[in-house]
Amino acid sequence: MPEQRELTIQGWGRPTRPRDATVTTGAAGDDGTLELTAFPDLAEVLSKGARRYLARELGWTPRPTRPVAVGAIRLAPSRLAEECRTRLVELLGEDHVRTDRDSRLRHAGGKSYLDLLRRRAGDASDAPDAVLTPGSTEETAALLALCSEMAVVVVPFGGGTSVVGGLSGIDPDDRPSVSVDLGRMASVRSLDVPSSLVTVQPGLRGPALEEHLAGHGLTLGHLPQSWEFATLGGYAATRSAGQSSTGVGRFDDLVAGVTLATPAGVVELGSPPASAAGPDLLGLALGSEGALGIITELRLRVRPTARSQAYEGWSFRSWAAGLAGLQQLARHDLLPDVVRLSDPDETRANLQMAGGTGAKALRGTLRARRRGAGCLLVVGWEGLPSLVRARRRAAASVLRDAGAARVGRRVGESWRRHRFAAPYLRDSLMDAGLLVETLETAAPWTALPAVYDAVREALHASLRRSGKRPLVMSHVSHGYATGASLYVTVLADRDDALPIQQWLLAKRAATDALLAAGGTLTHHHAVGADHRPWLEREIGPLGVEVLRAVKQRLDPQGICNPGVLLPD
Amino acid sequence: MPEQRELTIQGWGRPTRPRDATVTTGAAGDDGTLELTAFPDLAEVLSKGARRYLARELGWTPRPTRPVAVGAIRLAPSRLAEECRTRLVELLGEDHVRTDRDSRLRHAGGKSYLDLLRRRAGDASDAPDAVLTPGSTEETAALLALCSEMAVVVVPFGGGTSVVGGLSGIDPDDRPSVSVDLGRMASVRSLDVPSSLVTVQPGLRGPALEEHLAGHGLTLGHLPQSWEFATLGGYAATRSAGQSSTGVGRFDDLVAGVTLATPAGVVELGSPPASAAGPDLLGLALGSEGALGIITELRLRVRPTARSQAYEGWSFRSWAAGLAGLQQLARHDLLPDVVRLSDPDETRANLQMAGGTGAKALRGTLRARRRGAGCLLVVGWEGLPSLVRARRRAAASVLRDAGAARVGRRVGESWRRHRFAAPYLRDSLMDAGLLVETLETAAPWTALPAVYDAVREALHASLRRSGKRPLVMSHVSHGYATGASLYVTVLADRDDALPIQQWLLAKRAATDALLAAGGTLTHHHAVGADHRPWLEREIGPLGVEVLRAVKQRLDPQGICNPGVLLPD
Repeated sequence: MPEQRELTIQGWGRPTRPRDATVTTGAAGDDGTLELTAFPDLAEVLSKGARRYLARELGWTPRPTRPVAVGAIRLAPSRLAEECRTRLVELLGEDHVRTDRDSRLRHAGGKSYLDLLRRRAGDASDAPDAVLTPGSTEETAALLALCSEMAVVVVPFGGGTSVVGGLSGIDPDDRPSVSVDLGRMASVRSLDVPSSLVTVQPGLRGPALEEHLAGHGLTLGHLPQSWEFATLGGYAATRSAGQSSTGVGRFDDLVAGVTLATPAGVVELGSPPASAAGPDLLGLALGSEGALGIITELRLRVRPTARSQAYEGWSFRSWAAGLAGLQQLARHDLLPDVVRLSDPDETRANLQMAGGTGAKALRGTLRARRRGAGCLLVVGWEGLPSLVRARRRAAASVLRDAGAARVGRRVGESWRRHRFAAPYLRDSLMDAGLLVETLETAAPWTALPAVYDAVREALHASLRRSGKRPLVMSHVSHGYATGASLYVTVLADRDDALPIQQWLLAKRAATDALLAAGGTLTHHHAVGADHRPWLEREIGPLGVEVLRAVKQRLDPQGICNPGVLLPD
Repeated sequence: MPEQRELTIQGWGRPTRPRDATVTTGAAGDDGTLELTAFPDLAEVLSKGARRYLARELGWTPRPTRPVAVGAIRLAPSRLAEECRTRLVELLGEDHVRTDRDSRLRHAGGKSYLDLLRRRAGDASDAPDAVLTPGSTEETAALLALCSEMAVVVVPFGGGTSVVGGLSGIDPDDRPSVSVDLGRMASVRSLDVPSSLVTVQPGLRGPALEEHLAGHGLTLGHLPQSWEFATLGGYAATRSAGQSSTGVGRFDDLVAGVTLATPAGVVELGSPPASAAGPDLLGLALGSEGALGIITELRLRVRPTARSQAYEGWSFRSWAAGLAGLQQLARHDLLPDVVRLSDPDETRANLQMAGGTGAKALRGTLRARRRGAGCLLVVGWEGLPSLVRARRRAAASVLRDAGAARVGRRVGESWRRHRFAAPYLRDSLMDAGLLVETLETAAPWTALPAVYDAVREALHASLRRSGKRPLVMSHVSHGYATGASLYVTVLADRDDALPIQQWLLAKRAATDALLAAGGTLTHHHAVGADHRPWLEREIGPLGVEVLRAVKQRLDPQGICNPGVLLPD
């Protein structure tokens, strides 16, 4: 994957000053150097006004809390037995069984706040003992069988962007583990234009697929925030939802079939366009998070590139009015392709923190209409011009009836420009002493207000208990006829003595609260290691037993990502 | 269920002369009488021209082949042990454990051509030993546990409309069996209008639900041909698709959650509106056909009643042109809510057999345009007037580019009026010596022409081998972005000596052919007993093993409808 951009070991994306900060003092890496990860300084990415706003809201003073040098990250020696390594090399070739420090560090954990806290503190205890790069379904199936025989844990690795500990599970039997990086299996296998189906390998990323499809006037249209780095196999394994999911559907809806390699063999799942030949087994592979095997091929539904796109902003006076307006759109199948309704706290923060003339103009518009900040709604329409026109017109009438005012296209376009920005900003915020994390859920429309209140209250109460004043910003990020998802961003002054505990307590309180109020454990981040204590509350003890029975059949030795999804 | 219409024991729907044909000669029923099932004579339901057309096409002469009297149907004594009966009565009450002849006959098998052949010939060997009518989830779960303990097979009964032997499975261990009729569990439990969710019991039928919803300006919109009799639980258990499925979605898409009672306990599945909390277990209950347990409650997505409806006909010169036109609509998300494209044989038969001025006018229109019969397309649009208008206009332009000509609204309205008629007609056709059966599949657009050719060729070859000249009529019945379903109706002079073998051979040939050509085993009729020999070809040996593992966990004694879905 040299042609693809890499995530950094201690943060998101490529540092702005790659490797120029390498120094030669302190603890040494494999090459005797100490590489510093250098993220942009907060002053480079946030205006003075924005920094002041945060300082005031959070009762926080920016302070440098940079990560330890990469060379100083502690990494235990590989525990992969020489006999195992030899057999894996026989299968995959010397180049595709790596135990070097850099490979292992680059495959240690994902990109949750907790993952980053550990990596920034020099902890890589979740690093695999080796990194394998199979080249085909057959090699993947063979390595799974081999690892099953040799009692070696297998953790599939796509983009490494999990934010729920999907790569940080702990094997209860503490066996050696390998990361299976699918980066060599990253090509488009075939395209069936009349059937709108593309067949791809799991290590392919969104940008590469979109580039390929654009040549045929087609698009997949799946755009989560991790789009630049995440892989298509990863989307399937975690039941991802893109920012346009209201229009193009969740990733689930785009998958017509997958090939799943398991320790027990290979299974082909899915019969496009639809089938009634028994229960849907494809749905078992989607969201299986590597715990049932490794997805080695996917058939995906594509569509013609939208001929018309229109993004715009609307403003509601209150959160309740905004939810009611969206719900009216939803009932009548009038939801836009993209729909994001920010609550008052997120709206205010966005208006305060957004730079440039656009934000200024918007503040002016709102002032002129005497609306206060209210709740900002960003909507996006895509498709045939005549249908976009008809849908927009019908929706505008519903929105106006619900008390919303149009605030122009600039807001929509600005959101589009910055749609992938948040995780980059997180690195700089963490460097300045902040806790920065997100969580998400979904609920039926009638339960949504209670879920919203419960999550906010739980987060505030938990973080205030440790003496901090959090900023909790929420938005509806995906709409459905029956309900919507809620995405919550939390900022707070970090407790530098016990940063992991600080967040674990808040997360636990929020999760308990959202489940009790009728929300789902996760709408699009998956279960991973972080959510699995709650899985039984979501699907019941018998539901867990059903999953266990499936796993037992496909992975009898329990080597497939044992620390995620299923509770111990 | 006294307020609901009943299917007849030997056919579809209520006979036109109910019970007035009761005679008192011949073998006697429980009450000493011999009830004759009297379906309308063919001359009452088909015009002279239509009958002549069929006679000519099929090389067949109508002959009376009426069913044996109901009283003459052979029924073995109930094998339910007295101890079992006593314990079931303790659980459900005396009224809800029936072993009388009428109850058992009314729950014998479904309504496939093979089911009807058996019942018309006086064979009720697939009748249950008793009929249970539980009143709640708890009672259902308790009876499943009890039957599991007592080694009694349980076959759930909704509307009894299965056409794939879903109620005619044979238990390899030949244990006594009970039919669990869900007719007492037929109410609407709650309606959440803002979330567009209705909670219903499984024995409720479509008409009753639609009546309830209409009072709130809502509809479910699921309209399969069996709509008058089938139940909502049955739709879920068989992954049904309604005639408007292109618009409102398959039944799968309408189910937000179910309660599944199993011998191992009760499990609640589904988290509306969407979840990424592990694999989709709801998808295991949908299509489980009673083999994993009994669905005792459903949460369904409803929508506002369409304010505008427009049905119309189009004509293509050829099948290839018609498929290409639909595929263009599909790619661009312009498919109408209802879409039915008949092949030349079906178009010709419809034009010949349809009575009234409408058909005459249509024949005139087509003659005037020098199109011959060609291929008729019926489309239906439903929704907000402005959106229906925009979608129709965009689709019309695509259809015209594909060479189609509009032939007016009458065709569309006529199809709507007769949408539930075919199964009634079947009874009269069978009375006159005909084989009448349907089968269906689905395939990606690129595979569809080959699947179509393969099925037709297989049916023709098989039925000609027995010296008959079949009429094989096909239509595309549901469209998707990635492909479409194909629905095939077969008529032929019945082989009265070996009628079951005649069809089994044809069905086997057609199924082998459609699978080899890339079709799915079934698009919306389910697996039942009839398709299960092919399930492994559809989902692979490991797929079958996964299903077995799930069944083993939920139904360790294998009492849940053991003769369907999973191969022995």
